[in-house]
Amino acid sequence: MSDLKQQLEFVLELDRLKAVYRQTFVKPDNNRNENSAEHSWHIAFMANILHEYAEDDVNISRVTNMLLIHDVVEIDAGDLFAFTEQAAQDSQKNEELKAAERIFGLLPEKQFKFMQGLWIEFEDALTVDAKFAKAMDRLLPLIQNMYNDGGSWAKHKVAKTQVLKRNHYLKQSTPKLWKYACDQIDLAVSNGWLTGE
Amino acid sequence: MSDLKQQLEFVLELDRLKAVYRQTFVKPDNNRNENSAEHSWHIAFMANILHEYAEDDVNISRVTNMLLIHDVVEIDAGDLFAFTEQAAQDSQKNEELKAAERIFGLLPEKQFKFMQGLWIEFEDALTVDAKFAKAMDRLLPLIQNMYNDGGSWAKHKVAKTQVLKRNHYLKQSTPKLWKYACDQIDLAVSNGWLTGE
Repeated sequence: MSDLKQQLEFVLELDRLKAVYRQTFVKPDNNRNENSAEHSWHIAFMANILHEYAEDDVNISRVTNMLLIHDVVEIDAGDLFAFTEQAAQDSQKNEELKAAERIFGLLPEKQFKFMQGLWIEFEDALTVDAKFAKAMDRLLPLIQNMYNDGGSWAKHKVAKTQVLKRNHYLKQSTPKLWKYACDQIDLAVSNGWLTGE
Repeated sequence: MSDLKQQLEFVLELDRLKAVYRQTFVKPDNNRNENSAEHSWHIAFMANILHEYAEDDVNISRVTNMLLIHDVVEIDAGDLFAFTEQAAQDSQKNEELKAAERIFGLLPEKQFKFMQGLWIEFEDALTVDAKFAKAMDRLLPLIQNMYNDGGSWAKHKVAKTQVLKRNHYLKQSTPKLWKYACDQIDLAVSNGWLTGE
């Protein structure tokens, strides 16, 4: 198969991410569930708006790419609600590794290895770029829930400690946004959108 | 208002692009209409996969940014079907210019000017980067329609000449993909998905 044919097959495969729905709601669209494709667009865009708040210099072009591709594995593995117990998360991780192999594997070898490597870097979150990318992925649902009466937090009775833990990437990667997130989380507790535990 | 507050307000405003629906259909999601947020994700991703076919060297990071922001004006102006008569397109252009002023204007001055400039560059399509970005924006609906029995073309009885004209950015910007598009358009005519005019 020619490189172009493989690449176009991959591009078509991406269409399926528009059918993967998350727990977050899209308030301006009758509070329907958000899908992972539009979510990926939103955080990639947000990273470009907020990267001045990164504590260390980030390569915003790499961060953008990570965010564009970070959820592609959900085409096979589906989206798991962020506040799910550990056993389910471990099993999800295995599904996602297999998915990365299959989906990025549709591409010609060189692009396959590049995309898979970038996705693993995001997942491991050990580099400056990946930490900032993770921070963006965590911050956006918080912002969306805060302007939507608690959104998915309120629906699933999520606790303050769970959200703090999930947003910990912000602390080191972008302290100013971490401070913002902590204030918002406190406000959510006083509004009854998060439990105080 | 602090820069951060303005930036977060802008980020929230972007949520509204998820409620702007286009004529293209998402086949893997029961053929519902596609929205402009997920479309923007898809073409930004596609540009990263296909930029090796650009005739002149493109700055893929700038192209990606252009594609992330190119439809934001539709939050105010709505999406206009590609194959609409010229008068409606001229009126749409005015609405979009006003929208760019209002929406990018939510950002701090420096980012406002940067984003507005990038959007105008895309619209004018005079630079190498903008031409390739336009080419991606044109090519994807063609690919989507071809694997969906003609999709929006078939529904609206679009003619071959209209699609050729709309895809002309490909010719100079990426001849190999132009060749691909022409072959696909011929196939669409023989399948009855485009009229032969």
